[in-house]
Amino acid sequence: MAAQLQTGHVDFVGAGPGDPDLLTVQALRAIEAAEVILHDRLIGPDILALAARSSTLIDVGKAGFGPSWKQSDIDALIVAQARTGARVVRLKSGDPTVFGRLDEEIEACDAAHIPWRIVPGITAASAAVAAIGQSLTRRGRNASVRFLTGHDMKGFADHDWTALARPGEVAAIYMGKKSARFVQGRLLMHGAARSTPVTLVENASRPDQRILATTLDRLSADLAAARLDGPALTFLGLAPRAAVLALPDLEHGLEPGLEQEFA
Amino acid sequence: MAAQLQTGHVDFVGAGPGDPDLLTVQALRAIEAAEVILHDRLIGPDILALAARSSTLIDVGKAGFGPSWKQSDIDALIVAQARTGARVVRLKSGDPTVFGRLDEEIEACDAAHIPWRIVPGITAASAAVAAIGQSLTRRGRNASVRFLTGHDMKGFADHDWTALARPGEVAAIYMGKKSARFVQGRLLMHGAARSTPVTLVENASRPDQRILATTLDRLSADLAAARLDGPALTFLGLAPRAAVLALPDLEHGLEPGLEQEFA
Repeated sequence: MAAQLQTGHVDFVGAGPGDPDLLTVQALRAIEAAEVILHDRLIGPDILALAARSSTLIDVGKAGFGPSWKQSDIDALIVAQARTGARVVRLKSGDPTVFGRLDEEIEACDAAHIPWRIVPGITAASAAVAAIGQSLTRRGRNASVRFLTGHDMKGFADHDWTALARPGEVAAIYMGKKSARFVQGRLLMHGAARSTPVTLVENASRPDQRILATTLDRLSADLAAARLDGPALTFLGLAPRAAVLALPDLEHGLEPGLEQEFA
Repeated sequence: MAAQLQTGHVDFVGAGPGDPDLLTVQALRAIEAAEVILHDRLIGPDILALAARSSTLIDVGKAGFGPSWKQSDIDALIVAQARTGARVVRLKSGDPTVFGRLDEEIEACDAAHIPWRIVPGITAASAAVAAIGQSLTRRGRNASVRFLTGHDMKGFADHDWTALARPGEVAAIYMGKKSARFVQGRLLMHGAARSTPVTLVENASRPDQRILATTLDRLSADLAAARLDGPALTFLGLAPRAAVLALPDLEHGLEPGLEQEFA
């Protein structure tokens, strides 16, 4: 008897910023039901521990064990696993639709006629702004908020910098540590106030979360001194709320002893 | 004996876009543990049903029963409830940090020395983009994504419109139905292509979700014809993925019979 042709299924699942309690209920169920999970390097062990014992976990992170994965290899692996008939979860940090390289993987599934679904996740900006007790938008301050990556800002046009340099503007920069000096220079050149608040949240929502509150003119120096080595979200135009600084406890996601960061 | 002074606590909780499965685990636990829940009008009965039977539910929606609530009344009620010593949840649609009027309420708590926490939620843009099978950002297409409100766009400067009109730009407009004609005019004036894709997702993630795919030049006419009466998220620069249109099933959040929306 010929084996029946089975069609698998792929869920592109947002794992959120790190705290397993910030998974959505839908994401949690998808992880629990998965037979194969292909995950980013940044997905922590406490989230992977939610998977069934019988499931297969594959780290396709760019800096994982062995030679680094090319995007095309990841695309091919998703398709190959789904073609076995498996319930595949492609688990990505944060929200898969925000700087998640999602499109290439969906297009690979479409080309192979494999059904898929996107399960949204809490993006890093959302968790980080909650940690500093602020809002991404506020009446009378900023009419819009922008999500950017540090790398992509190098291709910015003058009108982008003009808009970002405006008083009250708020932007969340993903992967912005390396480009901090460049961004600082461009914003000052385009008229941003030297005292513009800038806040970095490293490891947002995780037990090792750290918050660095600074200003545009001190950004490079303070960032170099702070030696943040985890993934960090940079806010332009937002400082931590005073109550968060005055009460550095777990309530607001700050660990005791971090007060000196704000000195 | 004098009654002991009790301090309550306020969780500002994101209820997500509507589907209870898009609550975070943290939000679900906060709702289950709440003694008092002050909620927006848009929070659906299936989410409110998760609250304990003994809890008090108060609809502070702007269009609720009786005279509409002023923001200052809501602030005062949150404080008054927390001062009874209750575990209060202030439940807001989507993510409380995105167009959620969160700051006024936090400042009222701070003034009254009431401890609080922000529990992030899935914002409408994230659920809506998942429903159309797209990403908010994509390499080679858009280096950033912007969240706006329809109202606030009336105060936009020329450089904002120039940036939004650029090919490949992606923006998510909250509460954008009424301003659609204004936005259409400004974008065309600033050089946006008439064929720029525009997609509206009404009631994202809910059973009555509808998707309207159009283009910038047809936006006003198609929107008038579609008679969307629920909350809608408008994407500038994104069309639903072909696979979503070709397979209009619940897998992709589309209900059978909606194909004519895309005709």
